[in-house]
This record gives sequence, C-alpha cells and structure tokens, in this order.
Amino acid sequence: MAASAGPEIERLIALLAKLPGLGPRSARRAALQLLKRREQLLLPLAAAMAETAEKVVSCSVCGTPDTRDPCSICSDPNRDNGLICVVEEAGALWAMERSGAFRGKYHVLGGLLSALDGIGPEALRVAELVGRAKAGNETGATTEGGGVREVVLALPATVDGQTTAHYLAERLIGSGVEVTSLARGVPVGGDLDWLDDGTIVQALRARRPA
Amino acid sequence: MAASAGPEIERLIALLAKLPGLGPRSARRAALQLLKRREQLLLPLAAAMAETAEKVVSCSVCGTPDTRDPCSICSDPNRDNGLICVVEEAGALWAMERSGAFRGKYHVLGGLLSALDGIGPEALRVAELVGRAKAGNETGATTEGGGVREVVLALPATVDGQTTAHYLAERLIGSGVEVTSLARGVPVGGDLDWLDDGTIVQALRARRPA
Repeated sequence: MAASAGPEIERLIALLAKLPGLGPRSARRAALQLLKRREQLLLPLAAAMAETAEKVVSCSVCGTPDTRDPCSICSDPNRDNGLICVVEEAGALWAMERSGAFRGKYHVLGGLLSALDGIGPEALRVAELVGRAKAGNETGATTEGGGVREVVLALPATVDGQTTAHYLAERLIGSGVEVTSLARGVPVGGDLDWLDDGTIVQALRARRPA
Repeated sequence: MAASAGPEIERLIALLAKLPGLGPRSARRAALQLLKRREQLLLPLAAAMAETAEKVVSCSVCGTPDTRDPCSICSDPNRDNGLICVVEEAGALWAMERSGAFRGKYHVLGGLLSALDGIGPEALRVAELVGRAKAGNETGATTEGGGVREVVLALPATVDGQTTAHYLAERLIGSGVEVTSLARGVPVGGDLDWLDDGTIVQALRARRPA
C-alpha cells in the first residue's frame, strides 16, 4: 500500500477496509476524509465508537444490541408478547421496524445454520428461542399475558436461511406455538436489510405456516 | 430511520454515513459489523481514530498528514530536493508513491480552485508552494543543495484541476523553476472503445514516434 502514509494512518486504513462496503481504495478515501474533517468527523466518530463499545450490550431476552437490558422493544408494554419475530441479525430487525408492520417482540438468532461454515444450533440463540416459546405454554402458566402464540420466522430466502427456518420449525414442534414464515415475495437471495418497506409489509401480511 | 436502534447506534450510523463510499444503508451494515466484531474491529478502530486524531499533523513544509513534522518524505535525505510534485490531496500523493516512479518531494494543495464552490488561492497552500519554489533561486542562496529546479503539476484532468494548474503556472513565472504537468494520454491497459473523446483527442495531439 502507501508506505509513506505512516503506520497510524496505514492501520486506520487497514481497519476501515474491513467494514462491509469499503475496499482498500475506498478505505483510503475514507481515511483522507477523516483527516480533512478532524473536528466534524474523525473525533465524533472515534467517540461514537468508543461509546457504542462501552454502552451497547445484547438484550438478554431477544439479543438485540441496545443500551438497555432488557432492550427498549422487550420492555415496551404496548407490544404484543404473544408474537415473536425471529431474525438473523439486528439489521433485519431494524428493517422490520422501519416497515412499521410488526408490533410484537423479536428474537435475534445471531446468524444462520451453515454446514459450510460449521455453524450449528449451539452457536445461535436457538435454545433461548425455544425457551421463550415454551414459557407459559407447556406449564400452563400465564406469564406476560398468556405466553407466546406465534413465532414468525423472518429469515433470508437463501439456502442457509431456509435450512435454519426448517430446523427452527422442527424444534418448536410441541411448544404449543404456531410457527409461520414471511411470505414468498421476498426475492430469492434477498437480504431483509436491502428490501424496500413495501415488500416487507406484503410479506408480513401474507405469512403462512412454516 | 430505525428508532429502535437507540440513540448511540443511530449516531454511529449517521457518522459512518458521512464517509465517502458509505450511504445510509451501507452505514447500517457497517455499524452491525462493528457491533458483531467488538473486540476485533470496533475497539481497534475507535482507538486507531483517536490515535490518528491525536498524533497525525499536517507537515508544515508540504502539507502531508504524518506523525512527524517535517514529514518522513520531507526529511528523507535520499529524495531530490530540486523536484516538487504538486498534488490535490494526500490520496494522490499515496498513488504517486505506490507507482514508485517519483523520487522528489511533494506539495499538497489541500484542494483545487473552484469558482462554483468559492475556493480561491488563499484557501489552498499556494503561497507556501511559491515560497518553496523561490527559496534558493531568487536570492541566489544554495539551501537544500541548490533550490528547486522543477515543479511537476500532478493535478486531476478536470476543469477545476486544469484551472488550478494554469493558475499555479502563472504564479510560478519568475520563480526560476521549470513547471511541467503529468502527460495526458491513453491509460495503460486502456481500451480505446471505453475512453472518453477528450482523452483520445489529447492522446492524439501528444502522439509520438512508436
């Protein structure tokens, strides 16, 4: 790369290049921009990252990154406790929230099952999901206003996403909840984070048994 | 955007979106990646930015961002002091360095003249350039082994770039240095079919014996 830029800038460029959407060249441009706008961009971004690292934790209930635990969604009394939407990552959760079509709770898996990458159920928050689904159903208890009625699987329409959806549907048999999936209409290979809100609304309305 | 992400994460996303190459969506993806890889990416990047903000200064001679002042290029005794390459930004300097073809010193303007954006000569490091070019020529002194012989203008082939180049050439008249520009022509590996007309016109005008 550019030996003349000095080790500090080179290190900054190398780290920036690890962000999705930035390659080696655009990372250099980003570093330049940061150097040019030290007060307006570099210092605030450094502070925002440090603050995020310090304050943001994963919600112990649903796995969403937030400064509160339980997160603001899990502790929102106006949301339906009987409905859990399962997403791969927080990005998909944010996309669902932007659509404004879902008023239940969430469960962030933290990834997808992948034989290729060696990611099994124990690496994901599967046990926690099953636990939430069973709570207040198996035992007949009526916590949170009567337990979970339905789990909506909002996973990507990819091989790994559908494998994970099938696995989760299997695991949730006997928990007494209905398991549904977002309707086809999500384009094959499509990632929720990149979808327009209208498509998400339609797919949510037409959800069906997994 | 995503109200549920919390103010800290929203702020991080908003700042990331200001980086060149990242828009609102890719900034969200970048923020997610940072949250997922807290130890490997978020903390090191926050630290690298803080360190850059703290340590990197503009070289008082040439304007290059570096932790040393004068910068490592300006203080390199193996580089030709008689040759100054003028670039718009440090990014162009790094590109020149990667080519390995230039062994002189640099001068970073910090931008280009632009009537549209209201950027005049006083906003750029023009006076410093003229000062460097004149030092050891006008006065007959022989600092740095005999003053500057040649100023190479390595500015973009855009309207603003060429306006700036003409202005600098005017300003350097009487300083006793030769003022040259990078050659215009067909880039290496360039297919004529994909080149713009302007480049072809320039390359044809500057044709030379094969």
